[in-house]
Amino acid sequence: MSGVRTRTRLSTQARREQLLNVGVELFANQPYEDVAIEQVAAVADVSRGLLYHYFPTKRVFFAAVIQHVGEQMLEMTDTDPDLPVPQRVAAGLDAYLDYAKTRGPGFRAFHRAAGNDDPAVRTAYENNLARQEERLFAALTDNAADLGIDGRPPAIVRLAVRGWLAFVISVTGGWLDDPALSQSDVRDLCVRALVNALSP
Amino acid sequence: MSGVRTRTRLSTQARREQLLNVGVELFANQPYEDVAIEQVAAVADVSRGLLYHYFPTKRVFFAAVIQHVGEQMLEMTDTDPDLPVPQRVAAGLDAYLDYAKTRGPGFRAFHRAAGNDDPAVRTAYENNLARQEERLFAALTDNAADLGIDGRPPAIVRLAVRGWLAFVISVTGGWLDDPALSQSDVRDLCVRALVNALSP
Repeated sequence: MSGVRTRTRLSTQARREQLLNVGVELFANQPYEDVAIEQVAAVADVSRGLLYHYFPTKRVFFAAVIQHVGEQMLEMTDTDPDLPVPQRVAAGLDAYLDYAKTRGPGFRAFHRAAGNDDPAVRTAYENNLARQEERLFAALTDNAADLGIDGRPPAIVRLAVRGWLAFVISVTGGWLDDPALSQSDVRDLCVRALVNALSP
Repeated sequence: MSGVRTRTRLSTQARREQLLNVGVELFANQPYEDVAIEQVAAVADVSRGLLYHYFPTKRVFFAAVIQHVGEQMLEMTDTDPDLPVPQRVAAGLDAYLDYAKTRGPGFRAFHRAAGNDDPAVRTAYENNLARQEERLFAALTDNAADLGIDGRPPAIVRLAVRGWLAFVISVTGGWLDDPALSQSDVRDLCVRALVNALSP
């Protein structure tokens, strides 16, 4: 507002979080190559030196941004393990779709990381997907009898979970492009795709 | 074999095809950045000048490679429109899984194009996916009553088709990584995921 710059002093954790959130916004709206580390520093209103103190290279920074978004998604989609699986999946999907709807750019930046040339970035993305996969696989196999899928070999359940995550990512992207459908229609489509793919 | 180089003369069409096939192999095994146009010329045993005559830049070449693989996949998965949809889908999947199994590197290179930084490459990939989507959407909506899915709004069918293509790509990649499961198990999982996601 005024011409006087006042840089805010933040705790290490808060500063790191702030820088990561700036990263989410910038990488969401521009290709990786076009984001300059100077731009991150300018938007966050910190010196380049401070930014480099937290993240020594742009690739390290981007990998941390991806991990940050991934953690947020894992937390948000973590649901009550005492609920039946279809309800848990539905509740997790609602949280996921809420996140995608309100933070579209972050959602898109996150999933573009799957095709990043930097192995560290791809690894951050893939590790997150693997954790989602593991969580869902455990929920399905622990409740296989209730779900009527206890005849399926674990390898097929694992492949179905992997495919289903890709299904949800793709469907959510399509919904953001054309949000005419209601969130509950999209959620129910995704629930059916998982449970029914494994049913007899 | 001998020290004498004999460059083969090919027709324009055959030469183009040969260069594209060399591209499929090279881009499949190395990241886009690491493939040098000189390498393509060397493997194809043509001069750089000839290569540039067909494809003026590396990006144009890569986009053409992606389009080439996409055309092959569309052709291979084109099935008899007189068959019932589930059988058509199963037959298309068998052709697709055969292709992925026998030409794994080409399959992977093709799908990595989704995350390429070059808009022309991404467009070649996305156009191909859009054509697959369109073909499948038409088959489902033309046979909605037979499939018991005539209660679904077209927008949901479209989103389901989009998600299902991502499902199949992901599942096929997982199967290539760990081919313990039979092709028919993988095919049947994919068929169920499509038809059951849209069933009541």
